[in-house]
Amino acid sequence: MAKRTTIGEYLCTRLEQIGLKHVFGIPGDYVLGFYDLLVASPLEVIGTTTEIAAGYAADAYARVNGVGAVCITYCVGGLNALNAVAGAYAEKSPLVVISGSPGLGERLRTPLLHHKVRDFHTQLQIYEKVTERAFALEDAQDAPGQIDEAITSCLRTKRPVYLEIPRDMVHTPCDAPGPLKTDPPATDRAVLREAIAEATAMLRKAKRPVILAGVEIHRFDLQASLVKLVEKTGYPIAATLLGKSIIRENHPQYLGVYEGAMGREHVRKAVEGSDCLLILGAFMTDINLGVYTAQLDVSRSINATSDRVTISRHHYEGVSLRPFIEALRRASLGARRKARIARPPRPKPFRPQAKRAVTVRRLFDRMNGFLDEDKMVICDIGDCLFGAADLTIHKRTEFLSPAYYTSMGFAVPAAVGAQINQRRVRPVVFVGDGAFQMTGQELSTIARHGLNPIIIVLNNKGYTTERFINEGPYNDIHEWAYHLWPQIVRKGWGCEVRTEGELEEALGVAQTNTQSFSILNVHLEKMDHSNAMARLGKRLSQRVGRRK
Amino acid sequence: MAKRTTIGEYLCTRLEQIGLKHVFGIPGDYVLGFYDLLVASPLEVIGTTTEIAAGYAADAYARVNGVGAVCITYCVGGLNALNAVAGAYAEKSPLVVISGSPGLGERLRTPLLHHKVRDFHTQLQIYEKVTERAFALEDAQDAPGQIDEAITSCLRTKRPVYLEIPRDMVHTPCDAPGPLKTDPPATDRAVLREAIAEATAMLRKAKRPVILAGVEIHRFDLQASLVKLVEKTGYPIAATLLGKSIIRENHPQYLGVYEGAMGREHVRKAVEGSDCLLILGAFMTDINLGVYTAQLDVSRSINATSDRVTISRHHYEGVSLRPFIEALRRASLGARRKARIARPPRPKPFRPQAKRAVTVRRLFDRMNGFLDEDKMVICDIGDCLFGAADLTIHKRTEFLSPAYYTSMGFAVPAAVGAQINQRRVRPVVFVGDGAFQMTGQELSTIARHGLNPIIIVLNNKGYTTERFINEGPYNDIHEWAYHLWPQIVRKGWGCEVRTEGELEEALGVAQTNTQSFSILNVHLEKMDHSNAMARLGKRLSQRVGRRK
Repeated sequence: MAKRTTIGEYLCTRLEQIGLKHVFGIPGDYVLGFYDLLVASPLEVIGTTTEIAAGYAADAYARVNGVGAVCITYCVGGLNALNAVAGAYAEKSPLVVISGSPGLGERLRTPLLHHKVRDFHTQLQIYEKVTERAFALEDAQDAPGQIDEAITSCLRTKRPVYLEIPRDMVHTPCDAPGPLKTDPPATDRAVLREAIAEATAMLRKAKRPVILAGVEIHRFDLQASLVKLVEKTGYPIAATLLGKSIIRENHPQYLGVYEGAMGREHVRKAVEGSDCLLILGAFMTDINLGVYTAQLDVSRSINATSDRVTISRHHYEGVSLRPFIEALRRASLGARRKARIARPPRPKPFRPQAKRAVTVRRLFDRMNGFLDEDKMVICDIGDCLFGAADLTIHKRTEFLSPAYYTSMGFAVPAAVGAQINQRRVRPVVFVGDGAFQMTGQELSTIARHGLNPIIIVLNNKGYTTERFINEGPYNDIHEWAYHLWPQIVRKGWGCEVRTEGELEEALGVAQTNTQSFSILNVHLEKMDHSNAMARLGKRLSQRVGRRK
Repeated sequence: MAKRTTIGEYLCTRLEQIGLKHVFGIPGDYVLGFYDLLVASPLEVIGTTTEIAAGYAADAYARVNGVGAVCITYCVGGLNALNAVAGAYAEKSPLVVISGSPGLGERLRTPLLHHKVRDFHTQLQIYEKVTERAFALEDAQDAPGQIDEAITSCLRTKRPVYLEIPRDMVHTPCDAPGPLKTDPPATDRAVLREAIAEATAMLRKAKRPVILAGVEIHRFDLQASLVKLVEKTGYPIAATLLGKSIIRENHPQYLGVYEGAMGREHVRKAVEGSDCLLILGAFMTDINLGVYTAQLDVSRSINATSDRVTISRHHYEGVSLRPFIEALRRASLGARRKARIARPPRPKPFRPQAKRAVTVRRLFDRMNGFLDEDKMVICDIGDCLFGAADLTIHKRTEFLSPAYYTSMGFAVPAAVGAQINQRRVRPVVFVGDGAFQMTGQELSTIARHGLNPIIIVLNNKGYTTERFINEGPYNDIHEWAYHLWPQIVRKGWGCEVRTEGELEEALGVAQTNTQSFSILNVHLEKMDHSNAMARLGKRLSQRVGRRK
């Protein structure tokens, strides 16, 4: 007879096996039984202030560690985490979402149980819309297979999956787990050969081949392969905004972030002037492509994603990113090119002017020199993202931002998720005041666990990105004394910054304050902005539907 | 030819016509065009810190004013408001949810637009699960009818509806609005006659008839009818927890809140001992019914809801609450009964003992004397709700709490929604520390608009309700200095309370501090609790699936 365990323990075992050490969430009565199993397991539960913060933290954890998990109660918890899971789906971040639910037995006895919306499958049906696989574990015989299918699907597609456990099924016996089979998707070798043959011929003929690499390189753990391909061929390489930092940014062949006309001119020229653009693992999204300002000629492009390879206007199905990159590395692509990287003149070293008011542009100039190998950058949505695009990231994968789904409020909770499992790396968080007001209370979790991110609040008294699209009174927000948060959570250090002199002083204190977080309330003029945002605002304002 | 307007203006006109003066939300680029129309209209936009707070505020606004509205951007906004809308669905609070979405034109040009999850109908399909009607206004000819159908459905069913406007449809011309037809649901007179005949016969025969009234009395504006019925018949009346305050609680026939064995004994005895229980507009939910402790004999009950009338075990379909109550008022029910209300001994006047540590029980005893006609009570979820059940509410409808859906974090945003349109009534907000950490930042909106609620934070360092169900480390939270929030939002007054002497002093200051909010950080022992919660915890702990 097969070995036996319980559904709850089966799931805990799988979570450990795929490399999780932490699970984020908030308990609730429908999930308390499973929480007890988590506490008894080697997994650590990280309680957050809200479920949406648990979702963002788990998403960031997944981006850094390869997979993340969030565990919440039914509906009041699950629906509050939904937006973070939707963002993870859109940006391919592998999350396992676990929700408790009313017991199957009690559903019959009492149809109107608390937390119920319409029927007992409402939450499952909603999660089906934002996950790759979604199951309610309502049958002990099916549960092990459903858990395995969800988890392997999560790892294969790098997208969230959803598992719902009725509270009276947590301790129900089921078959014990065998080895977890995580086969990569099958590749059709004949299709791959034909795709490689065509790509190789194009690349050999090209005079100015360029690589444009995106976030899937990181998700599918292909950074090492990419670097080898880059160094073997000598091609220059640019990154998309979402893929920023998938290659170390001081690599000699690295061009910078490509964002159409929003980004730096030398990158735009190199990418758009290429006669064979090799796009690897990039989402061709509006924000990634400079909000419609990209001018890419598909007839001269090879575009490989985790789903398929497209050359010019035809597709090779059944070939995914990893075998394509690896076959390309082995292919004969001609002599190594000598990449001529037309770099802009090296910026002058930043010299603070003590009395000068801080501006967004000067702030990021200054921060560039502040970053080192022991820091990572986490960017919320708004001008901080556009301003941060030109920061130089020293290591691979250490720039986190929801640059496609663009959900405000990601950054502070993401600092929890990013640092909890690699304490040595210190997050530098750029967050607008509007985004901070959404989820800034996660400083509570940061304080509780002794994390030490440096939080830079760009305080421009409202939603300035929107002011450039459509100005209205709704873009103003109530101003907070952001730097006083250490008093609320009884830990951390904060200060106000108005001038470059104050900025220097604050960064000095923050750098040495390694035992807790630091928060800088950086006062900015309402309409001060990065250059990229001015261009973005102009583009978007043509589309909001404001009446002429 | 019919008069013409635009889709956006059509919707604004309808929102005004149904009595809205405020719309809650946060702007985003897909909805900025519609925000401009709101600003130009007589409606006032109330910006909140988060979309979930906008949802809770609009829900509370709807409970107080008859209908509420929330307006957000696509997915990152809409999905963040979802849980509040689900709660409004579960508890029948009439909300109009308006979301911007990508323009129909741009969807074709750029399939990967920011904020998109899976496809362009993902958010619509999700909202279909938690609303009565959901439409995307993608066709100018259909839009007026869809808007009218959604809005009349919202008013008729008292449940949320969803309208999504692609940003390039906001200024699209359409037919101008005619008069809004809001016919009540048709009643089958023959069915009503039969139901009334049977109910009347039962009531005339009964020796101990009792009324149990619920929240639908308020939603369908039947308080005046109910009072007339109560006073004509002389029957004693109890309320459910969700329906608390649907009749003024110092009415001579009022028994108190019925919550099975969780509530006061004299109410339980009267309700469960009745030989004909007339249940009017109550949700028969687990929390409402004392978490499974209710002992109601259906064979001796008449249960009328907005959907149908049930007598014993048979149903009369097509008869709703209003015609039933009104027909009952006109029916001959025999002589007026002399209600014998077995009241518990009147509690002794509260005498503070200056040095005595505050307890939950003594706190609510004290607060009972603090309430007057100019205050309303808003309760979050947790022991504050159970403790508050016994407070005496002087006016009708002035007790707000999500007592069925039980979503934590409701109360502080609800204070915004409840007070913004009736500034004279001052909310007294009871909120646990865990719930405050979820949405307490709405003090920002309270400060911005000069509202003056009195916020009582029950600070027991964690999720104490859950401690009674299943104790574990996950029930502890990081402690905040809640009373320092006035420093963060640069307005308001706060203090710490540990003893009854400090409580007296704090309430004195709060009472006179009418120009801004007051926040009391009330320190409680971790396991201190109301009596009702001890009984609840015991009940629930049998169900969480903790292994024996």
